[in-house]
Formats: sequence, structure tokens, C-alpha cells
Amino acid sequence: MMRDMVIGLEAVLADGTIVSSLTKMLKDNAGYNWKHLLIGSEGTLGVITKTVLRLRPLPTTNQTALVATASFDKTAQLLRRLEVSLSGRLSSFEVMWDDFYGAMTEAQLSKRPRPLKLGYPIYILLEALGGDPDSDPAQFERVLAAEIDTGLIADAVIAGSERERQALWAVREDMAGGYANMHPCTVFDVSMGLADMAGFVADVRKEIPDRFPGARMLFYGHAGDGNLHMAIHVGKAPRTDEVESAVFDLVRTVKGSVAAEHGIGWTRKPYLGVSRTDAELMLMQKLKDTLDPRNILNPGKIVG
Amino acid sequence: MMRDMVIGLEAVLADGTIVSSLTKMLKDNAGYNWKHLLIGSEGTLGVITKTVLRLRPLPTTNQTALVATASFDKTAQLLRRLEVSLSGRLSSFEVMWDDFYGAMTEAQLSKRPRPLKLGYPIYILLEALGGDPDSDPAQFERVLAAEIDTGLIADAVIAGSERERQALWAVREDMAGGYANMHPCTVFDVSMGLADMAGFVADVRKEIPDRFPGARMLFYGHAGDGNLHMAIHVGKAPRTDEVESAVFDLVRTVKGSVAAEHGIGWTRKPYLGVSRTDAELMLMQKLKDTLDPRNILNPGKIVG
Repeated sequence: MMRDMVIGLEAVLADGTIVSSLTKMLKDNAGYNWKHLLIGSEGTLGVITKTVLRLRPLPTTNQTALVATASFDKTAQLLRRLEVSLSGRLSSFEVMWDDFYGAMTEAQLSKRPRPLKLGYPIYILLEALGGDPDSDPAQFERVLAAEIDTGLIADAVIAGSERERQALWAVREDMAGGYANMHPCTVFDVSMGLADMAGFVADVRKEIPDRFPGARMLFYGHAGDGNLHMAIHVGKAPRTDEVESAVFDLVRTVKGSVAAEHGIGWTRKPYLGVSRTDAELMLMQKLKDTLDPRNILNPGKIVG
Repeated sequence: MMRDMVIGLEAVLADGTIVSSLTKMLKDNAGYNWKHLLIGSEGTLGVITKTVLRLRPLPTTNQTALVATASFDKTAQLLRRLEVSLSGRLSSFEVMWDDFYGAMTEAQLSKRPRPLKLGYPIYILLEALGGDPDSDPAQFERVLAAEIDTGLIADAVIAGSERERQALWAVREDMAGGYANMHPCTVFDVSMGLADMAGFVADVRKEIPDRFPGARMLFYGHAGDGNLHMAIHVGKAPRTDEVESAVFDLVRTVKGSVAAEHGIGWTRKPYLGVSRTDAELMLMQKLKDTLDPRNILNPGKIVG
């Protein structure tokens, strides 16, 4: 996450004070961590003018595969096992539910065949990064083969070249085709504990068509950090507020976040209370009032 | 770092409000991150009553070595190279300067011989963790052998058993013997950018004996995150304030932190300004005044 990469910060506060800590220290427990308060505050507590980012050495190897599993439960087990057996090299674990995989690969059929056949409930794009060309690729193949033996992986294809790697990533990222018959649609960026994710998806799949007959839905996400994306199309007329209200009611039941990575701004502001208690909202307002008493910094966003 | 492991928090604020976000979400950008403001505030902004910690699967393999290098510059290069070549498995990179290594191994000579001979400027305890018993140990040996070929490692010994591993760790951690003729001593927990560390150590080694003839010093640290520990003995009479003042003057010149991991409390409070600008101290005071206007929470610590 970006927050974890920021080690130094400079910001201008509402009263004109320049507060600066452009250090290169990774570890520092000298006083209050005001940097984390500014990060993600969307310009409402101060204007960030400089940052120092942590750099990491570039990995020199990558291995990419598309695998299918028989259930979300097996998917979660697979994630936990790969985190260990790949010795921390697992860098992508992009879950695609069957609806998303079907739509994306359908749109690309003119360019290439489906890398794995339809019919599984879950497809996962896996990538491992590393720095040891002598052992990384063989380790990756051995670890995936072991999970085929355990039954956690039902089917798999490993990219054998950079061209094949890009073709597998296109299944996850070449959105234009997959979204072709989804306009207009409401997109979501929610998060929750991994243990709640299968039930949440099942609830959305039941409730949304009940309330919006003929709705089309795509589910996909970065399961490794509990982040789930959804695209929901309920007909030609935009009904964003109704769809959001229905989905966020379900987010509330799993104590999830309405904004995993894209923030609140003003469009998600009415739903901040889904993810935050009244006491938290009061604390946020108090911090805003302290740092920006005249409400001149990006007014109307997040709180106030 | 502990901060990165905390994903949920409950705290009681000075006005009695219970503010709670005991979520299991790893990724959440819904509003201000008040959790990071409370973490590390040493009870001065609220009383933390519950936490949710991130758990990670236990690694199943470890490989441990003690190596020597010809300079701090080569040590820093080695760190950067191992971060890549061990594919992110490097978990310990404990730097010990010759004075520390000499004192610690001297104290243990009745139990075991020195694992590496004296005479190098820097010794490093290395550990890698992983989950693949089929390839991790061989990879570790291959990577270290490659760095002997590049000349970054001058000498090395790899632990061949758990008993040998514990003997290598004792060089770093069995403090009682190494500190035997250091009482009373002043210990430090500072941090800085890795590029500044060699010059800083050289400056301390020059300035302290100039001001305190006969001073004895030990240097060691977690170089991977810029953390340096020092123990300084300047005679039988405690002269903590003078020693701290001299060392922190040098910390100021490298824009380092006076408290990398152990916090400020009241003993480091006079030196908070070494690591923080006046604007930062004013911001911290403002946050304290907002959240604890009657100064009832751990008064006298950090600020106020």
C-alpha cells in the first residue's frame, strides 16, 4: 500500500505553517506520527507539498500463472499456503469470479482462446517476484504442482514467455471489452476480512437481482489484502444511489470498508458511517476543526 | 515494525469516549487514519484497550550465517544485493562493529571459540526465513558463495544445526558478558539513513573519547531499517546527560531520530527537538491539547 511507502512528508497547514519531516528514516518513534494523519486525508487537513518514498530494489524474476479453484474456500486456503511455500515471493493474487472471467475472455476471443475453460467458480491470476533466476522459476512450478496434488488448484496454465504473461494479465486488466455491455454501471471498491468475502458475494448476487431484475454483475479483487471490486449494471437508466445504498447495507453487515483504496471525497461521504462508528466520525470532525478551523482545505470532503 | 502489524484498535479518549475500529481489514481508506495517531503516542492521547493484530503464516525454514566485511560501505552494498538475491527472504541483518563483536565473543570464550577471527571492521548476523525446505537452504549457500566471489563478504560461517544457530545468535544477544566492564553505561536507540551511518559512527568514535578520555563504546544495530544501538561507558560516575547531549548533537547533524523504536517518555523528551522541527512540535502540542485539554493522560510525557 502507498501509505507504507511514504517515509517523509512536507505539508502546508491551514494557518500557513509548513510542517516538514523529509527524513530517510525507516524507523522513528519520536513523538506523534502526524504523517499518517495527513496521508489519505485527501487535502482536508493540509496540502502535501513533498514526500520521501521508500524505494525497494527491483526484482529480477517474475513467474505468472492463471489457476482455477473449485470454491472460494479453497481459494482462501490456497492463498495462505502460497504465502508460505513461495517464501514471501507471492506478489499478486487477483481473484476473478466466473462472471468476470467469462465476460473478459469472451471479449478477447477474437485475439486469443480462453487460457482456461469456463465452468469453475473462481479463477486466480498469480504472480511471484524474486531475485534468483537459478531457482525461482523451478520453485514456482514445483509449488503449483504440489497444490494440484492437494486438490486446491483444479486447473492451471503457467506463462512461458513475456507475451504469454501479458495475455494472462489482459484477462484481468483489459477492461474495455469485458465492460462493453455494462454501461452505465456502478463500480465499487470495498474491503472486508477474507473470511467474510464468499458470503458477501453470495448476498450481493442474491439481493441485487431481487431488487433490480436483469442486473448484470462482475466480481474481482485483490484478495490478498481483502479488497473486492464489483461492477453492477441494472439497466440503461443510471440508478447509482439505489445500487450503492443496497450494496453498502451489505458492507455494513460484514463491518467492511466502503473505500478500500480510492478514498471518500464527496461521493462516498454519505456512506462513511457504514464503515465508521459515530465516535470515530466525531473524532475525525474534531481533528478537522483543530487543523482547519475555518474549513478552507478542500471543504465538503470526508467530514464537515 | 509493530505499527505495521496493527490493523484494528480500540481506545478510550480523555473525555471518556470509546473510539473503536476493531476491523480485520488490511486495506481501508475511509476517512482519517486516527489509529496511527494513537499508536506510539505512549498513552498521552488515549488509553488503548484492544488491538487487532495482523498474523502472518509461520515460516517453515530458516538459514543463519555470520559474515565479515571489509568496510561499512561493502556492508551496505551487501544488504542491497541480498534483499534482491534472497528474493525477499532476508529477515535479519544485524550489524556488529568490531568493538562489539570483540567484547561479546571474548566474554563467551569459556563456552565456545570465536566463530570468525578478529580483525574485520564489521561482522553481520544474517538470517533468511522461508517456506520451501527443498530449495531455501541451497539457495542461501549459493547466494552467500556468490558474494564471497564478488568480494563483498570477506569471511563467513553458516550454522549447520539449531545448536550452531543459537551459538551465532548468542554473539548478538547474550549481552550480559559483553557489557560486563561497561557499567555504568548510556545506551542509545537512534536511527538515520543508511548512507549516513558510517560517518556518524566515525564521528562518535572521535568526539566521545575527545570529551571523555578512556571512554569505551560498543556499536551494533538493525541496519536493514537504519536502526543503530550504542553503549557508551565514560567512567564510574554516571554522566548520562553529558553523554546524551554529545551524541544527540551528532544525531542532529544527520537528521536522525533520537528514538528509533523505544519511544520518548520523559527521559528523551528534552531531546525531541533534535529529531523534530518547531513546527512539528507545535503540531504535536495542538493535537495533544485537542484530545486531552485537561492534560490527564500520562501527563509530562512526549509534549506539554
